[in-house]
Amino acid sequence: MASGKLIGVGTGPGDPELLTLKAVRVLGEADVVAHFAKRRADHLAGGRSNARRSVAGHLRPDIAELPLLYPVTTEIDRAHPDYTAAITAFYDRSAEDIAAHLDAGRTVAVLSEGDPFLYGSYMHLHVRLAHRYPAEVVPGIPAMSGCWSAAGLPLVQGDDVLAVLPGTLPEAELARRLADAQAAVIMKVGRNLPAVRRALAQAGKLARAFYVERGTMSDGAMMPLADKPDDDAPYFSLILVPGWEKRP
Amino acid sequence: MASGKLIGVGTGPGDPELLTLKAVRVLGEADVVAHFAKRRADHLAGGRSNARRSVAGHLRPDIAELPLLYPVTTEIDRAHPDYTAAITAFYDRSAEDIAAHLDAGRTVAVLSEGDPFLYGSYMHLHVRLAHRYPAEVVPGIPAMSGCWSAAGLPLVQGDDVLAVLPGTLPEAELARRLADAQAAVIMKVGRNLPAVRRALAQAGKLARAFYVERGTMSDGAMMPLADKPDDDAPYFSLILVPGWEKRP
Repeated sequence: MASGKLIGVGTGPGDPELLTLKAVRVLGEADVVAHFAKRRADHLAGGRSNARRSVAGHLRPDIAELPLLYPVTTEIDRAHPDYTAAITAFYDRSAEDIAAHLDAGRTVAVLSEGDPFLYGSYMHLHVRLAHRYPAEVVPGIPAMSGCWSAAGLPLVQGDDVLAVLPGTLPEAELARRLADAQAAVIMKVGRNLPAVRRALAQAGKLARAFYVERGTMSDGAMMPLADKPDDDAPYFSLILVPGWEKRP
Repeated sequence: MASGKLIGVGTGPGDPELLTLKAVRVLGEADVVAHFAKRRADHLAGGRSNARRSVAGHLRPDIAELPLLYPVTTEIDRAHPDYTAAITAFYDRSAEDIAAHLDAGRTVAVLSEGDPFLYGSYMHLHVRLAHRYPAEVVPGIPAMSGCWSAAGLPLVQGDDVLAVLPGTLPEAELARRLADAQAAVIMKVGRNLPAVRRALAQAGKLARAFYVERGTMSDGAMMPLADKPDDDAPYFSLILVPGWEKRP
C-alpha cells in the first residue's frame, strides 16, 4: 500500500478568513487532522487550539481528529533537562502516532498557527517525518503580519533591515539589536515586557513601538506601547517597531 | 455621498491558491482594482503583473481596472535625485487617481504581491490616503514564506533571531549581520549575488544557504547556493539561511 502524505498547514493568525484557498482545499481532502493543544480541562470540554478553531467548517464531517496534547511538563523551566527530555519524548511519540496513519495510506494535515516554518511546532514533526514520507507545507499568514495589517502599520520599505527578536533575549542584547535595525518585531513579550520597554528606550525606539495583543482576534487590543499603562501582557503579544523612517 | 474604501490586498507569492479567503471576498466586492506594473510592450499586449495574474478569476466581470504604470525612470540610478522626483510624482499621481474613485463612493482594491506592509509598493499609496479615507489592509503570504515552504526548509525555531536583509547592503555589513543572527533571508539578490556569496562565506554560513528563484511559480528553481554554478540571478530571487542549529 502507498503511504499517505504529511501536510503542514499554516492556519494564519486567528481570523478564519485569513486561511488560504490551498489550506481550505487540503483540509477538505485530508483523512486525519492533527493539532497541538494544551492538556487542560477546557480542551476536554471542547475548548481547542486557535489553529483548530480557525479551520472549523473546512473539515470533512467524517475526519479523524488527532489532538497532540503537550505534556504537563511544559510548566517546568525550559532550561531544565527534564523539560527537554519530556518534550523530546512527546514529539517522538506524536511523530509515531502520525506515522501510523501515514503507513495506513492516510493523508494527515497538521495544523500550525501562523506559518508552519516560522517558529511553528509543526517543525518538530516535519524533521522527524519528511525524510520518510511524502511531505508538503502550506504557508500561512504569520501572526506578526496579521498584527501589523490590523494595526495599519506599514512595517518595512526599500532597503530597511528587519530583525525578528524573541523578547526573552537579555536586555542589553535586545537594546543593541534594536538599535542596529531599521525595523523590528519582538515576540514572546509576556512577562518580559518591563525589560523590553527598557531596551526600546535605550535604543531610542520607545516612541515608535506599537503593542499588539491577539492582533486578529475579536478580543484583540493594540496601542502605542507608550500609551500602555501597565506591564501585563500575554505570552503571545507582540511589539512592532516600524522602519521606513523617511516615509513621506 | 459617503466615500469608498481603500483596501490593500496581499496577493501572496504567486501561486493563486495562496490567496486568502478574505482577499477573494474583498476582490469580489471591489468596484475598482488597481495594480502596479511596468510600462512595457507586453503589458499593453495583455501581459500583467504577478499580482494581477494571481487574482484573475476572482474579479467581477464589470470591475474597473486601474493599472498604475511605473514611469520609465525606474531605469535611472535609484540614488539619483531625478529618480526620487519622478517616483514621488508617480505615487502622488497614482494616489490622486485612486482618490477620485474613493470620492465617487467606489471601493478600490490595490493589489500587492506578497504582504502589503512588508516592502510592498502599496505602502506608498497607504501613507498618502489612509488618513483621508476608510482603509483596510488584507495581509498576504510573504514571498519569503512561499519560498521556504516550497523548499521544505524549516526556518526558525525557539529563540532564534531572524534577520531580513537587502542584498544591496555593503558586503562587510552583510557579513557582520549574517554572523550576528541565527537565521536570515536575503532579498534583492540579483546582480549582488557574487558579493552575497562572499559575505555568506565570511560569516561561515555558505554551506547552509539556499537559493530560491520564483519560489512558488511553475518555472521556479531552488537549490543549495553551493550547488549553483553561476552568478545569474533575477532581481526577485532570495537566499534563505535557516536557523535551528540544534534541530534533532
